[in-house]
Amino acid sequence: MTGSGVATATPVGIDGARLLARIDALAQISPIEGGGNSRLALTDDDRDGRDLVVAWMRELGLEVAVDVVGNVVGTWRVGDGAPVMMGSHIDTVRTGGRYDGNLGVLAGLEVIESCQRAGYRPPRPLAVGIFTDEEGARFAPDMLGSLVYVGGMAVEEALDVVGIDGARLGDELLRIGYAGPVPCPGATPHAFVELHIEQGPMLEAEGVRIGAVTGVQGISWQEITIHGQSNHAGTTPMALRHDPALVAAEITVFLRRLATEMGGHQVCTVGKVDLHPNLTNVVPARATLTLDVRNTDEELLRTAERRISAHVDEVAAREGVRIERRTLARFEPVTFDERVVAMVEHHARARGLSVRRMPSGAGHDAQMLARVCPTGMVFVPSVKGISHNPAEHTEPADLVAGADVLLGVVLELAAS
Amino acid sequence: MTGSGVATATPVGIDGARLLARIDALAQISPIEGGGNSRLALTDDDRDGRDLVVAWMRELGLEVAVDVVGNVVGTWRVGDGAPVMMGSHIDTVRTGGRYDGNLGVLAGLEVIESCQRAGYRPPRPLAVGIFTDEEGARFAPDMLGSLVYVGGMAVEEALDVVGIDGARLGDELLRIGYAGPVPCPGATPHAFVELHIEQGPMLEAEGVRIGAVTGVQGISWQEITIHGQSNHAGTTPMALRHDPALVAAEITVFLRRLATEMGGHQVCTVGKVDLHPNLTNVVPARATLTLDVRNTDEELLRTAERRISAHVDEVAAREGVRIERRTLARFEPVTFDERVVAMVEHHARARGLSVRRMPSGAGHDAQMLARVCPTGMVFVPSVKGISHNPAEHTEPADLVAGADVLLGVVLELAAS
Repeated sequence: MTGSGVATATPVGIDGARLLARIDALAQISPIEGGGNSRLALTDDDRDGRDLVVAWMRELGLEVAVDVVGNVVGTWRVGDGAPVMMGSHIDTVRTGGRYDGNLGVLAGLEVIESCQRAGYRPPRPLAVGIFTDEEGARFAPDMLGSLVYVGGMAVEEALDVVGIDGARLGDELLRIGYAGPVPCPGATPHAFVELHIEQGPMLEAEGVRIGAVTGVQGISWQEITIHGQSNHAGTTPMALRHDPALVAAEITVFLRRLATEMGGHQVCTVGKVDLHPNLTNVVPARATLTLDVRNTDEELLRTAERRISAHVDEVAAREGVRIERRTLARFEPVTFDERVVAMVEHHARARGLSVRRMPSGAGHDAQMLARVCPTGMVFVPSVKGISHNPAEHTEPADLVAGADVLLGVVLELAAS
Repeated sequence: MTGSGVATATPVGIDGARLLARIDALAQISPIEGGGNSRLALTDDDRDGRDLVVAWMRELGLEVAVDVVGNVVGTWRVGDGAPVMMGSHIDTVRTGGRYDGNLGVLAGLEVIESCQRAGYRPPRPLAVGIFTDEEGARFAPDMLGSLVYVGGMAVEEALDVVGIDGARLGDELLRIGYAGPVPCPGATPHAFVELHIEQGPMLEAEGVRIGAVTGVQGISWQEITIHGQSNHAGTTPMALRHDPALVAAEITVFLRRLATEMGGHQVCTVGKVDLHPNLTNVVPARATLTLDVRNTDEELLRTAERRISAHVDEVAAREGVRIERRTLARFEPVTFDERVVAMVEHHARARGLSVRRMPSGAGHDAQMLARVCPTGMVFVPSVKGISHNPAEHTEPADLVAGADVLLGVVLELAAS
């Protein structure tokens, strides 16, 4: 057998039923119709979720540290040196699923409990992180907590972020009791491994059980506000209009065409549009839309951004509207540590699980941790690729298999 | 001189300062930034506006009747027979101007007060109507009050209309104290004349002071709901998407192209778009948009509706989304009474005011009254054609000139 034998030689195995029971219990907090969850970051629902997971951490005897932006790290103080960290997030989008994020956190607890129950004490501490506001669905940018954890955003700036509901992030942290004392940037782990559902259709389509994630697509989020001329829908001749809704629509259609033309890993989405005053018989005064543009290749991502920018300028000039642009988030593509990627492949194969290397289309906390320590991710299949949706589903056997691979990789890293 | 000499022979003239003072006073109720008003139908703001105008009616000794859908008719009981009715509406869109509707109501009061102060008693009663929910900005369809007044919609149906904020029209009428005892359909006037701002750019562009309105465009309002597949914006390949936001955008772009291609009096507007869940990184599950389509020619309007319907079906099939359609309003084009149109021309010219015949691009209460009695409208210029906007403006001299033409037409009709 190739690769390290440390983990596979260890008499430790995941208790699948215990993992699934924790997933079920967390999904009971803020459930929504269709089986998913709605736990926008730093709401009362998010607090309830945090309280539950923190209680589990304490039951396992972990040392629980909350930092100034609400990241929670539970550490099992065994062995020596910096911990091998696992984890993810437990906030969701407004109509989210029950596995996105939660799986990575709860599988981390399961890895630790499995070791404890088997009487196995790894040579390094193991830790599980719950990172604040990964989804960015309430406070932009997404992955805010892990970004601040690695020093990529100033604490003050993060605390001053205002959410879609007008609330300030720092105030919400205080309100829900998760404004902790631990400073950021946080302690650098020995390594970081995140188990996550794929949130895409590739693994299921190819019948592969485990994804060894090679890196994360670069993400460009911008908000475009179009200022036109509000007017009466019945009396304003078409040629005299300065219609922001039309310009927003043309940009939306262009993004689809661009992504199709560029092909490869290029994806473009307009998921949010707000017209003002938003009435049937009024040409709007203003339209605001968000552009979500991603590619695994930084050069291609820049090309997409340039072409979009040129198109926006061209349509704006033709229609006589004024454009305001705001960058909501911009992350270059991330490449994970080759050794960790190889360990994921090895531990999948060692368990008889089919595995493929693949990039992540979604952003993850792991991409932030990759800035400071060797990092990797384990993907498990999403049925029909559905995510950010109550219908999000991963087969129980795949959830357990992913946690088992996580266990193997983490114990190998802890021995290194 | 051609035409009747009744009115011009009468020693009655508009007091411009009094008219402008009433317009200013009504604009003090629910003012918004930029000089306009926000008085959505049957809100507290609308009630405050109604209370002020009703108080003025009583000061003039008018008999005030409130009907079952909240239309208010103030009648000066002089002479014999059915009254010549003036009037319009005082509700506004959410970001409306101060002249749209209000001018027609307040000029009606001014016509009556001018006669009273001059000691002139016309041979027929004169009346001023305030019609409920003309804008349709809170309760669909627009022109609801005048539609019910002429028997075009059942009272029960109107009372059960639910507004954009979930409120029931009948409940709101009761709440603000304008659920009156007078039955609908209402008494048929001898004739109806409505003074209104043009809300379009034609009169100003041609330097013409008065529009003799020949009729009103036909209006087709529909709401389209697009049901797609919500999913993660980063991981869902473009080819596998069922994106309602894209379909809404394609429909919006198509409407502009259709209106431009058809030319003439064809106008198309998408003024309202709502995505769900409306988040940057989620392909929406659902999009709802409204289509406002108008033409002066019923056949062309039907052609536009057919072509839009075919386009929606085609895009929906291509993108794999499901479409739901709801008709919000549908009115055929209206032709005003030729004698009244000629009177408007005559009384403008008699006062040395330039005048042109023109259709109305906007819907007006007059188009409903045209179903039951000889009806016409007087237009005055809108600066830059701006309306449904706080910047809506008509020069004071034009407001007064319009009221003066209204006076002439009304007194001629009262003598007939």
